[in-house]
Amino acid sequence: MRQAQREITLKTTGTGLYEFSRDAHALVASAEIEMGQLTAYCRHTSASLVIQENADPDVQRDLVAFFRRLVPDGDPLFVHTMEGPDDMPAHVKSALTQTSIVIPVTHGKLALGTWQGLYLFEHRHAAHARKIVLHVIGA
Amino acid sequence: MRQAQREITLKTTGTGLYEFSRDAHALVASAEIEMGQLTAYCRHTSASLVIQENADPDVQRDLVAFFRRLVPDGDPLFVHTMEGPDDMPAHVKSALTQTSIVIPVTHGKLALGTWQGLYLFEHRHAAHARKIVLHVIGA
Amino acid sequence: MRQAQREITLKTTGTGLYEFSRDAHALVASAEIEMGQLTAYCRHTSASLVIQENADPDVQRDLVAFFRRLVPDGDPLFVHTMEGPDDMPAHVKSALTQTSIVIPVTHGKLALGTWQGLYLFEHRHAAHARKIVLHVIGA
Repeated sequence: MRQAQREITLKTTGTGLYEFSRDAHALVASAEIEMGQLTAYCRHTSASLVIQENADPDVQRDLVAFFRRLVPDGDPLFVHTMEGPDDMPAHVKSALTQTSIVIPVTHGKLALGTWQGLYLFEHRHAAHARKIVLHVIGA
Repeated sequence: MRQAQREITLKTTGTGLYEFSRDAHALVASAEIEMGQLTAYCRHTSASLVIQENADPDVQRDLVAFFRRLVPDGDPLFVHTMEGPDDMPAHVKSALTQTSIVIPVTHGKLALGTWQGLYLFEHRHAAHARKIVLHVIGA
Repeated sequence: MRQAQREITLKTTGTGLYEFSRDAHALVASAEIEMGQLTAYCRHTSASLVIQENADPDVQRDLVAFFRRLVPDGDPLFVHTMEGPDDMPAHVKSALTQTSIVIPVTHGKLALGTWQGLYLFEHRHAAHARKIVLHVIGA
């Protein structure tokens, strides 16, 4: 049984999805794991992770639009506003999506479906440097 | 340390929850793992995974009803409509639930609570064949 | 490769977030794992898990307020009402958040971000004893 780990940094430029499937594939390949599992973990509470369709870019646009309408900026419900009108909505959107995702490794490859990509979901408007830890274990 | 993996296919016949706890239990038993963890992974972006109550079927009915109201078919907000009025809502519902779930294995059994079942959540109306990868690691 | 497991019980006193990062840190330390991953698993369907900000308590208050508005008690949409007006909303809130969270272990420590805490999200109003299984694997 072997394992490997890497922290990557994604530079975001506003709300949206940022794919990092390639980094996950690369770690699995370099660790030479045939069967096992990869964990992706987001070290933030105002950005999160999602698996989404990687074919039509409109899917990403629509996903962002839905979450913006569901959790609007500047909602008077929120008390935690000192970091800006998009901060508490970012925490809520993170809770509604995922902080960690685990993907099996089969025959040396991530078991992502044909149309699946692995994305960071940035919820803040300003640019950020987001840290994701990738961990793979198997044999 | 040992591991085992299996891909199962669930044939869905419309929106709803489809239990596959039995398949997960079977993999743990056949791998003869006493302590460890099982990962369930859904290889689609218009279906997802949830742990839910396995006692009263009304819970499943109500869960489906809530998500249908929260993310309605044919919402004019959506641009990605070429695959039908229930396609983009299916992507959103997948993002709101889970693509992967990890369950510890304790004394040779999944640590599911008394009322917990492991379900595929089908978000499309048409029949589909959904692939789920089960992976167990432990000793 | 080593692993360790522990079930903890959190006594809740109503809707809200209950931190158990300390229990997770303790298991990693006692198992003496330098690199690996920890899984937290909630054995209930009316309580769930979230990673959230551990700095300003208003974040937790706002998170609870958002979910209460999104999934109101006593919603006439729900048929499953025999366990009280806050029971079916609790199942929905669990589906919208997470039942399992996996956190990598790096240099002997959980890779939690600076502002991240690991929380049980209690969705019921009455007091409950909630069981969480912690499992760590690595070397």
